[in-house]
Amino acid sequence: MSGETSGRLTVVGLGPGAARQMTPEAAAAVEAADLLFGYAPYLARLPERAGQKRIPSDNREEIARASAALEAAAAGAKVAMVSGGDPGVFAMAAAVCEAIEHGPDAWRALEVEMVPGVTAMLAVAARCGAPLGHDFCALSLSDNLKPWALVEKRLVLAAEAGFVIALYNPVSRARPWQLGRAFELLRGHLPGHVPVVFGRAAGRADERIGLFTLAEADPARADMATCILIGTTETRIVLRPGLAPLVYAPRSAPAAS
Amino acid sequence: MSGETSGRLTVVGLGPGAARQMTPEAAAAVEAADLLFGYAPYLARLPERAGQKRIPSDNREEIARASAALEAAAAGAKVAMVSGGDPGVFAMAAAVCEAIEHGPDAWRALEVEMVPGVTAMLAVAARCGAPLGHDFCALSLSDNLKPWALVEKRLVLAAEAGFVIALYNPVSRARPWQLGRAFELLRGHLPGHVPVVFGRAAGRADERIGLFTLAEADPARADMATCILIGTTETRIVLRPGLAPLVYAPRSAPAAS
Repeated sequence: MSGETSGRLTVVGLGPGAARQMTPEAAAAVEAADLLFGYAPYLARLPERAGQKRIPSDNREEIARASAALEAAAAGAKVAMVSGGDPGVFAMAAAVCEAIEHGPDAWRALEVEMVPGVTAMLAVAARCGAPLGHDFCALSLSDNLKPWALVEKRLVLAAEAGFVIALYNPVSRARPWQLGRAFELLRGHLPGHVPVVFGRAAGRADERIGLFTLAEADPARADMATCILIGTTETRIVLRPGLAPLVYAPRSAPAAS
Repeated sequence: MSGETSGRLTVVGLGPGAARQMTPEAAAAVEAADLLFGYAPYLARLPERAGQKRIPSDNREEIARASAALEAAAAGAKVAMVSGGDPGVFAMAAAVCEAIEHGPDAWRALEVEMVPGVTAMLAVAARCGAPLGHDFCALSLSDNLKPWALVEKRLVLAAEAGFVIALYNPVSRARPWQLGRAFELLRGHLPGHVPVVFGRAAGRADERIGLFTLAEADPARADMATCILIGTTETRIVLRPGLAPLVYAPRSAPAAS
C-alpha cells in the first residue's frame, strides 16, 4: 500500500447466498480486491485467493468497519466490502456513505462504487410464487437505530396502505420480543387469514420456506437470517397437487379501496 | 414437443440490463430453454442459440403471454419467460401465477420456477450511494390495473410513514399526467428540498442518473423505463470534489418521529 490516492472502495452485494445467484459483476469486484472486509459468514462464502487479505468482523459496529475500509482505501488499497443480498438494503452501503460524510476530507475524494445484488425479499419471494407482485414495502424490525414507536407507526401505515410488508432483521438475541409485538399489532389491522411467509437461506442447501396465516404466525420460527413477507387481503394462494402452493399478490386491485 | 407433462416454465429475471448484472442462474435458465417468451427488448439482450425459438411480445397483454407460455410448457416444452429486473417486482411472475390460478387443471401440475434478479430500484440506488438505506416502499404508478385513488392513498401514507418511495412505471404514452400529479401530491406532504433521483438504464452504456429536489422534479424527464427514488426528510447528500454526490438514507432515525 502506498500513500497515494489510487485506492478505491467497492461495496459488493453477494446476493442471497448461492454462488449461482451472485452477479458476475460482484464476483469480479471480489476477485479484483487486495483487501476484503465483511461480516465473517459472508467472507466465508468466497473462494480464497493468494495475495488477498481478509478482515472479518461481527455484524455490529458497521461504522467502525466502514471507516477501517475507507482508511485502507485512502492509503492506496483496492478494498471490497462485502454484504449479503444487496448492499443498499439494510446493509453496508449506507454506513459507508455515513462514514464518508463524517470522515476526513480525503475520503470524499475516493472512488467508491456500489455493486447491487439480489436482496433477500426477492429470493424468498421467488421461492413461493410472486408475493411481492403488487406495491410493497421493506422494513427493518431492528430498533437499535430507530425508536420502536417509529417501527410501529410504519407497520400500521403500511397495513393501511395495503402494501405487502417485507420484514428484515426480525429478531436477534438482543431483540427477542419485537417480532411478536409486530404480529400482534398487525393482527389489529389485517384479517387473520392474511398469508405470512417465513424465508431463510432461500436458494441454498439449507433453505427453509414456511407458509402460515397471520393468525398463526409464530415469532419463534424466525431468526436473524429470516426474511418475513406479510401479504395483504388481496394475496392469493394457489394449491397444486404434489407441489408447493403458489403465493402471489395480484397485479390488479379492485376499484373500491 | 410431446404431449407429455415433462415441460416446465421458468420465469427469469434478467436484471437491470448489463450482462455483468445478470446472475449465472438466470443465464443458465435462458440457455436451457427450448422456447423463450418475453417483451421484445428483453429478448434482444440475449445471445441467439441454435434450436431455441423466440416468441417476442409487446409489454401489454401479460396474461395472454403467460397463458401462451403455460400452454407450451403443458405440451412438453422447456419454456423460459424473461423479465427485466426481477420477475416478482411489477413483472411477469404474478401474471404467471394468476394465469395458473384461473387456467386448466393441467397448469397446476406443471413445474414452475421463478429466478430472481436485481430489480431496477437496487441498480439505480447503487449508482448514487444508498438512497434506500432505511425503510422504503416500491409502488407502480400505473393505474391500468388499480384505481388512481389507491395510488394517491398509498403515496400519502408512504410519505407519512417516512418511507423512501421507489416509483416504477412512472409514465407511458397512455398515462402522461400521473407522475406530475404524484409529485404535486407529495409536495403537499414532504418539504421541497427532499432529493429525487431519476434513474434510467442503470449500469448500461446509455445510463442516465439525475438528482433533483422534489420542488424542481420535472415529470418530463421520465419515460417508461425510468425508476424514480423519492427520499425523505432524513435523506443526506454528500458533495464530493470532482465526483458525483452521494445520496443516502441514514440507517438511524431520530427518537422523535
